[in-house]
Amino acid sequence: MKTKGKQSVEFPNPPYLLGEASVVGKMEGEGPLGKYFHEVCPDPFVGKKTWEEAESALIEKACNLVLSNSGVKRADVNYIVGGDLLAQLMATSFGVENLQIPFFGIYGACSTMGESLTLSAMMVEGEYAQGVLAVTSSHFAGAEKQFRFPLPYGNQRPAAATWTVTGSGAVIVGNEELMARQKQPAAGAKVVIRGITVGRITDYGIKDSMNMGAAMAPAAASTIAANFQDFGVGAEDYDLIVTGDLGVVGTQILHDIMEAKGLPIRKKHLDCGVEIYDTSRQDVHAGGSGCGCSAVTLTGYLLRRMREGSYRRILFVPTGAMLSPVSFHEELTIPGIAYGIVLERR
Amino acid sequence: MKTKGKQSVEFPNPPYLLGEASVVGKMEGEGPLGKYFHEVCPDPFVGKKTWEEAESALIEKACNLVLSNSGVKRADVNYIVGGDLLAQLMATSFGVENLQIPFFGIYGACSTMGESLTLSAMMVEGEYAQGVLAVTSSHFAGAEKQFRFPLPYGNQRPAAATWTVTGSGAVIVGNEELMARQKQPAAGAKVVIRGITVGRITDYGIKDSMNMGAAMAPAAASTIAANFQDFGVGAEDYDLIVTGDLGVVGTQILHDIMEAKGLPIRKKHLDCGVEIYDTSRQDVHAGGSGCGCSAVTLTGYLLRRMREGSYRRILFVPTGAMLSPVSFHEELTIPGIAYGIVLERR
Repeated sequence: MKTKGKQSVEFPNPPYLLGEASVVGKMEGEGPLGKYFHEVCPDPFVGKKTWEEAESALIEKACNLVLSNSGVKRADVNYIVGGDLLAQLMATSFGVENLQIPFFGIYGACSTMGESLTLSAMMVEGEYAQGVLAVTSSHFAGAEKQFRFPLPYGNQRPAAATWTVTGSGAVIVGNEELMARQKQPAAGAKVVIRGITVGRITDYGIKDSMNMGAAMAPAAASTIAANFQDFGVGAEDYDLIVTGDLGVVGTQILHDIMEAKGLPIRKKHLDCGVEIYDTSRQDVHAGGSGCGCSAVTLTGYLLRRMREGSYRRILFVPTGAMLSPVSFHEELTIPGIAYGIVLERR
Repeated sequence: MKTKGKQSVEFPNPPYLLGEASVVGKMEGEGPLGKYFHEVCPDPFVGKKTWEEAESALIEKACNLVLSNSGVKRADVNYIVGGDLLAQLMATSFGVENLQIPFFGIYGACSTMGESLTLSAMMVEGEYAQGVLAVTSSHFAGAEKQFRFPLPYGNQRPAAATWTVTGSGAVIVGNEELMARQKQPAAGAKVVIRGITVGRITDYGIKDSMNMGAAMAPAAASTIAANFQDFGVGAEDYDLIVTGDLGVVGTQILHDIMEAKGLPIRKKHLDCGVEIYDTSRQDVHAGGSGCGCSAVTLTGYLLRRMREGSYRRILFVPTGAMLSPVSFHEELTIPGIAYGIVLERR
């Protein structure tokens, strides 16, 4: 068995990240990480007629870009594993349709990049695939329409609210054989998925859809603590512990929970939702969120820094809030989930 | 590599189905397969206040039942892999929450049982888990509210429309070690997952949400043909080829497509949507549909018949239509997908 502790797996033959792509909207391009992204789309409709089709277009761009960036042939990708925030994965279904690669649709809310990397790594290491394309996305306008208010309503947003990132991130996870055949290996060091920690649904009873950070922080804490326990490590063993989209409110809660557990992570912690926008300059309140948030921060910024040599080992923990418009109107809680991915430079 | 052809995997150490459970509503209990189901819930609300909570209750019942039926301990189940039709997997998130088992949320529309069995088999055979619980569900009233009209509206349904099955099916996929420890092995023969074929998104341009069979039949045909090609087999090598929920309209289309491909399956084919209701007696138009349809037909009826010795090898092909209320209103097509699972008696 390759399991490690109660919730984790350590891969004997860690699969490689053969390439990555990040495609973002205008606001993300103007943020602090703007220069790192592979492509910025200034048109929020990405040339389409609806927000949902625009999101599908971002996904299609990211998938095509990761194939051309990495020099991996479409025929060498066994599966796509992906999903988005929209009901019935509408953006992804239409976004990946043209590629005609066998498809697994997944839903982990904003933790989707973590879930897809986990499954992709298992498929490659288990020899069920030589290459898997992991992709996810979100779109500010599509998400507001789905979960809150249509934009023309012009509602006010409380300070704890986050801003859904418009963007799509894609990664190709592959084995050594495919890496050897790849025409354009990523510049710099190789990066592998050393292990994973699968989250449990964590529900602290939060019902405020304008404070998703609070709903997700306990899930992040649970998964990070499980990772430490299962691998017998602590914050000191990672160069960075990266959560998905807690924003400034959720980040504070995560730090508090981890300190109460006797596992402080504050000095090693970075939240993609905090990094992707400049909250002093951009009107995003508590920061960024959405499946795209951690996906483009990973594919645009973090992997570049890892390949350049800045970080050796990162615990990447995308965080998801299982909110639906129906559960919100029925006054149910917002369960959270988080997946932990141990990324290592080789 | 354990891949077989372009879209399939053949497992060198086929994982076992250690137990199964089916929980259905009143109409399913009154149908031709009624006597096979493990539990019938006469109350459509399952003691809850909303349709969505009722569906979560069905899931929770099916999960608890498969654990007690099989005598597998909760602590020996590494992951739950599951999903449902509702936006953001609302039914599943709340349905599995209390079990506190690490969770992968998936969305394959009505093909979900196929997707979850595929992933569960990979996790077990890849040694990432000793046991995985695969679960899915649907609820007639919740689905009508989500996709079509609320029930009190009393709209008329065309003849091609299917009736969403109220029910949840759960399976525990496990390795030999867990089987040896299991306190209550299923009666009769052992059943394994010999291989899988992963579907591509197949889109013939169907836009009629009242004719889901037509949207899914091409996906079923594509996956069955890929299975035949990848494994070098034909309809004659299976005792049954079982599609999920094409209904009478979709079934006819599937037969026609397969005959046009020169791969007739009519004599070996059974559709869960056709079997689960008596269309001459029950007012369901073209038959049953929904994630629950193939899930309860598998867990209640098919596995029992396999374990009793009636069938040796079944190709189980749950079929999904990636319809969303938003894509419907935006007049987009309904892409289909299907997963093929080769079940063998040992």
